[in-house]
Parts: sequence; structure tokens; C-alpha cells
Amino acid sequence: MHVLALTKPDGRRLALYGREVISGIGAAASPQTGSVAANPHMRWHPLRGEWVAYAAHRQERTFLPPPEYNPLRPGSDPAAPTELPEGRYDIAVFDNLFPTLTATAHDPPELHIPTQPALGRCEVVVYSPDPDRSLAQLPIWHLDLLLAVLGDRTQKLGAEKTIRYVLPFENRGAEMGVTLHHPHGQIYAYPMIPPTPARMLECEQEHLRRTGTGLLTGLLASELEQRVRILYEGEHAVAFVPPWARYPYETWIAPKARSAFLHELDDDTRRDLGRALKVVLLKYDGLWQRPMPYVMAWYQAPTDGLSHPECHLHAEILPAYRTRDKLKYLAGTELGAGMFASDVLPEDAAARLAAVDVGARADVP
Amino acid sequence: MHVLALTKPDGRRLALYGREVISGIGAAASPQTGSVAANPHMRWHPLRGEWVAYAAHRQERTFLPPPEYNPLRPGSDPAAPTELPEGRYDIAVFDNLFPTLTATAHDPPELHIPTQPALGRCEVVVYSPDPDRSLAQLPIWHLDLLLAVLGDRTQKLGAEKTIRYVLPFENRGAEMGVTLHHPHGQIYAYPMIPPTPARMLECEQEHLRRTGTGLLTGLLASELEQRVRILYEGEHAVAFVPPWARYPYETWIAPKARSAFLHELDDDTRRDLGRALKVVLLKYDGLWQRPMPYVMAWYQAPTDGLSHPECHLHAEILPAYRTRDKLKYLAGTELGAGMFASDVLPEDAAARLAAVDVGARADVP
Repeated sequence: MHVLALTKPDGRRLALYGREVISGIGAAASPQTGSVAANPHMRWHPLRGEWVAYAAHRQERTFLPPPEYNPLRPGSDPAAPTELPEGRYDIAVFDNLFPTLTATAHDPPELHIPTQPALGRCEVVVYSPDPDRSLAQLPIWHLDLLLAVLGDRTQKLGAEKTIRYVLPFENRGAEMGVTLHHPHGQIYAYPMIPPTPARMLECEQEHLRRTGTGLLTGLLASELEQRVRILYEGEHAVAFVPPWARYPYETWIAPKARSAFLHELDDDTRRDLGRALKVVLLKYDGLWQRPMPYVMAWYQAPTDGLSHPECHLHAEILPAYRTRDKLKYLAGTELGAGMFASDVLPEDAAARLAAVDVGARADVP
Repeated sequence: MHVLALTKPDGRRLALYGREVISGIGAAASPQTGSVAANPHMRWHPLRGEWVAYAAHRQERTFLPPPEYNPLRPGSDPAAPTELPEGRYDIAVFDNLFPTLTATAHDPPELHIPTQPALGRCEVVVYSPDPDRSLAQLPIWHLDLLLAVLGDRTQKLGAEKTIRYVLPFENRGAEMGVTLHHPHGQIYAYPMIPPTPARMLECEQEHLRRTGTGLLTGLLASELEQRVRILYEGEHAVAFVPPWARYPYETWIAPKARSAFLHELDDDTRRDLGRALKVVLLKYDGLWQRPMPYVMAWYQAPTDGLSHPECHLHAEILPAYRTRDKLKYLAGTELGAGMFASDVLPEDAAARLAAVDVGARADVP
């Protein structure tokens, strides 16, 4: 993996990643002039015991621009600058122009509840200079490279002293609120362990303490033994519909052997994980013959300097639809009570996804 | 409050409520023939430590029928039965035809994770026989009656031995997945305290133990002192945008004095709470001159037979939009990390809602 670190005129960082040597790179530009003025803050929600972030400047963010204004395409026209330079590279990562968390947040408002600056980082991960190729359409080597890039970002961001948790994710499709069509993911680097991974780690720690074994590691072994909900099994990685799926057609992807971070995976495992990801995404798009919108999140260990033997990294993909044309809405019981109700049995979802033949498309190295 | 309890031919319960004596009631009918076959179950999510409900029969539920097929309108045609009889009453409550939780669930599947029958109740609350009047358009006496009805249901459902938590809520608008246009709410009666209220109670208990005072009670006093985010203050009730709002234009409604249950409120307080609700809903619909879709949930104490001096009942209303035409999407950070990010400051939301003049419409007794 080759990497080239640049700085944009407005001070934001840009990192270009390539399988081959990076070359022919134009000047790092920014679609805006001047510096980024964002100063987000957090407030403590006393009845949920969690932080909420406020980033008022995000209200004005770019919203589904036409292709000719795509700020994620490589460009070299100084009159119409984009986020990416022209040149030879495969993946680009840069500081989000509309961050929810920043490294320079300061002076939060004083209220009768605790507040703090929304310190952290928000990065955009452009999967490919090609605006028309979704993740599923990229070859395995490219997905492998992406996972290596996400690992590299996790390691670099996690090394900053304010950052305690790094979450790479993708929101795909207008149904998920995506504001730019060019396929891309995001990385949020948080100043605390956010509620969802905190809860997972708590469950995993408790299990490890009680049994001496890894919670997810054991669950993967059970799934592989039962073979009812498996979508992909390679030598090192597995993809499945978990029997505890909260969303219709929810899938999980994980290495078979426990690993806490993407950047700690060996090459073979990371490559097999990339292949598992490709298979799942091809099945999603094939299920109803339309691109499946989803949220995908990669859970790793906190970057809090502590050892996390309980943590087994995995991805969760949460699709937006429950049938071809009916969205899964989060409503009263999900948003109000926090209890998810699904009308698709995980076994049925797994059978339908397993039946989608991705043929030779998953074999493009 | 007058109540008439009936049983539908398929065994489901129907309760009619009226301010005046209920009269002229036709036969209780059901849009379906035969008995309700639902047998939902729950599975344990090992990495979140929570239950997920599966109700596969719900996939076939009625989806936005045209007005002539509205199953919530009062009807007397045996050839086209609806859920409600004709006659004189104001509010109707009946067992949901497509329940996520039932009193008869049995024999959950055996898996390598814990499972249990999805025991409980799901009720539909038809606000008025009039299919065209939303909650905001009902007079104060009707909202007062509704809160009394929700209290009565909470008490009756909570008395069943399997039920530990009762959550009245409303999903309003197609954006929230509403499948029937006739204004209505729902009640879920859970066999456990679901994650969200459980977390609230934990925070409230910890505060009570540490300070000897009620958490929300104290926060309400601070809000009333600062007067920055107040939308309504009556003698007994208050409505405000909380400084910790997770959703743009989120509002909370609560009695000033602590009370654990709707059915424990005195008449004056309940009526003032109804008025607070009407003011907030009128402001929502006036904000962008269009009906505001939302999820509204009423949080009370568990019905677990224990005393809950920490619990101060309140409603939360979570609107669907962040601007007139932009939805607030839950995506990577909310669904993946559990950390909400808002681009509307609570103070700005409160100022905009406060500026919506509801005039004399809130004074209709």
C-alpha cells in the first residue's frame, strides 16, 4: 500500500492511497475558499446518559448535486475545484468539509447540563476516482486495499490523544440521507466510546470474564456449525445473517479468528474479508435487482490505550428495505422503546440472500 | 370517563371511551374472519444485551388503503366490516390485528441464543371516529380524555402479570411508516422494561440516590428558570425543547410536579398536559405550514410492582424533518455508533417554534 499525505489550501488533510506507486498528482484543492469555520459542541443528555453533538453549520451542506458539480470527482480546473486531484491513485481520504467533530472545537456554550467541545475528526473516504462504481463493483484487490486504508486511518486517528474510538461506516443511497452520489464512506473519530460500541464491549467483556472465551468468536463457531444463515465462508472470513438481526436482511461480516483492529489483520485474512464483503454486496443488489441502500459500520476496539481481548472486529450492514418497495421504518417501538421488531425471520432472509447467485462476479481478483 | 368493553368475533378486545354516556353501539366486528394466528417470538441479541421481536405475519399488514377501505372508520355494513362500530363514543382502543407482542405467544424456536415467546399486548388507539381530524385539531377536552384513556390502558395492561412496561406512542405520517391515514396511536405492553426506558430509569435512579431529588423534576425547574426553550407553561404542565434534543425540533411535555403514571394525574394537571400537547402540535403544523410527521412516546414507570420514586412521566416528540423539505436521517453515527448529531441548535428550534402563533386555536376547551 502506498500513501501520499497532502494538505488542502483551507488546512484540511488529504491522503491518497494506491496499490501501485502514486504518481501524476495535481494540486490539492478545495471546493470552498477560506478556512473551515466549524465549531461543533456536545451536550450531555441527562436521561440517556450520553453525549449529543451539535454542528449547526451542517444545515448548509451540499445536497445531491448534479453530476457536473460532483465535488468528489478528481478535477484540475481551478475555476471549479473539487476535493480530489487528478493523478494515479485508488482511494482518497480527506477531512469532511462539514464535520460533526473537529480537532479544533473550543468554547462550548455554558448550560445547566454538561457541555464539551465536539473534539474528534470526520473523514470522507472516496472508494475510487470513478463516480459510477459502487463498492460491490470494485475488484477484490480494491476492497482489500479499502480495508487496509480503513485500518491505516484507524491507527493514525486513534494515535491522536483526544480520540478514543474510530468508526468507519458507509451510508449508501438517498434513502439513508446520502447527499453525494459518488460512492464513498466516512470515518468518525470520537472523543469517547459511543453508546453502541460501548454496549457491545460491555457484553463482550462480561462474557470473557465469565467464560474465558470470546463472545463473537463463539457465536461465529456456532453459526458455522449450524450453517443455516451463512452467506459466505472462506478460509479466514465469514458473512452471515445473524439469528439476532434487528433489521430485515441485516448481515454481519467478520474474520473467523479474533482480531481487534483492521490494521492487525494479516494479508490473507484481510483479502478474504474483502471478498466476503463483495459477495454480500452483490447479493444485496441482486436480491431485488436494484441497488440496496444501507448503513454499514465496522466495529473495532477502542483506541483508548487499553488492551481489549474481548473485542472481535466485525462489520454490520443494515439495509433500508424490508421488501423490494417497502422501507423498514424505525418508529414507536424502535425509537421510543429501543426494542426492534422485525417482520422478516433471519432464516428466511438468509435463504433468500443465499439463493442470489453472484456467479463469477465475486471471483474478479 | 365512560367505558364500554366489548369482544370482537375473532376474540380481540375492543374498548370504547366517551366523555358522555356511550350509546347506540352496533356490533363489534373485525375486518378479517377467523382468529388471529400471530405467534411472535423474541431472540436475545448477545452483543447488545437486548431482546429483538420477530413477527413474520406483519409483513402482510394493511398498507395505506384508500379512504373507502379505511378499517379504522366506524362501520355497520356486514359486507365490509371495519374495526369500529357506529354509535356515540369519542375514543376506541382495540387489540392490533398485526401484533408484535401477544398474550398467547408460545413455543419460540430453539436456537443457539436465548429465545422466548413475544408475550405482551399491542393495541391501536383511534383518537376519534372522524378520519380527518388530527390530534392537534381535537378540542382540549378530547386530548384530556385521550390522556385519561392512555392512563386507563396503562393501568389495565400493567395489571396483567406478564407485562412490565407500557408505552403509549404515535407514529404520525407516511414518513414514519404509518400504514393507515386515520389518526391513531398505539400502545405496546412489553414483558420486560425495554432498553430506552430502562436506561432513563437507571439515570433517574442514580440521580435520586446521589442527590435525593428527581432528575427530570430538577431539569424542568432549570428550564422554567432560564425560559429560553419553553413553548408552553400552564399552571401544572410545561412543554419545551430540551437543551439535549437529539432530533431537530424535538419537544418534551411533562407535568411540573412528579408523577409516575398518567392515571395518577389529578384532573387539572391532566387537562393542562392535554393543552400543552395541543399547543406543541399546533406549532409543529404551523412551523412549515404542513402536517409535521413525528414519533411521540409517553414514558411512565414500569408496571413491575415496584415503587419508582425516581420516575417523572413525560412525553417526547421526535419530528421527521430538519427543514421544511429535508428529512432528518438516522445514519452512520446514529445507527452505527448511537451518538446523535443534530444540525439544529435546540435554542434556535425553540425560538422558531415559539414564534409560531397558534392564536385562539389552543383555547378551544
